[in-house]
Amino acid sequence: MDTAPETLSADQEAWLDAIVYDDNGLVPGIAQDVTTDKVIMFAFLNRDSLRETLRTGNATYWSRSRNRLWRKGEESGHVQRVREIRLDCDGDVVLLRVEQVGGIACHTGRERCFYRRLETEGGAHWVETDPVLKDPESIYK
Amino acid sequence: MDTAPETLSADQEAWLDAIVYDDNGLVPGIAQDVTTDKVIMFAFLNRDSLRETLRTGNATYWSRSRNRLWRKGEESGHVQRVREIRLDCDGDVVLLRVEQVGGIACHTGRERCFYRRLETEGGAHWVETDPVLKDPESIYK
Repeated sequence: MDTAPETLSADQEAWLDAIVYDDNGLVPGIAQDVTTDKVIMFAFLNRDSLRETLRTGNATYWSRSRNRLWRKGEESGHVQRVREIRLDCDGDVVLLRVEQVGGIACHTGRERCFYRRLETEGGAHWVETDPVLKDPESIYK
Repeated sequence: MDTAPETLSADQEAWLDAIVYDDNGLVPGIAQDVTTDKVIMFAFLNRDSLRETLRTGNATYWSRSRNRLWRKGEESGHVQRVREIRLDCDGDVVLLRVEQVGGIACHTGRERCFYRRLETEGGAHWVETDPVLKDPESIYK
């Protein structure tokens, strides 16, 4: 995806105006790996993080716990290069199709955050299906 | 996916207890088509809707606007047969991998709700990329 210049005019904000934010100024974001098509994570974005995502070409979320921009991969190096941004029919959910650098999206060191699958045999229960590819302690020093 | 019997014992609710719900008892849900791997829609679920989803094998969401269970496809016939349910690392987002009956997930008559893509040439703007497959007026009579 081409990135935009750092300084944006009012006109260049029109795409951000088309998005419907919640009462906290947030919009849910889904990240999908462009190579595997797997859904790898879910996080919120706000206007600033969307602008940064476009400007830098790297997925930038809004951390609700830290109350600040979260440049995905800022600590781990596992940045997400954004190849496509999509918006849903109601304009209130964003889909980021990304190239996941390092092949690890989850803070647990797994490929994706959705590493648990519901199994129904013997009573419904969650099963971890994906291996830890890298020890989180070596990711976050 | 195998479906569970209608009457669930406390033990059979353990998988629901593992999910982290928000203050309104909701959990975000992402629906992905198992055939195309496209992310087709986003909606919320609650405990009852998750139970119904497992019991019936059809994706059942919670409609925040109507404040009731939303059996996806109840009007349109475009039900979603659930093939896999996944849970993320924090336990607060659900991924439903579904077979989309009729090939239409969106109320606009499109394959998916994420039918707009951000184009950056000539200034960032949203472009509709997916055609309307069926007139919504003929879907919702």
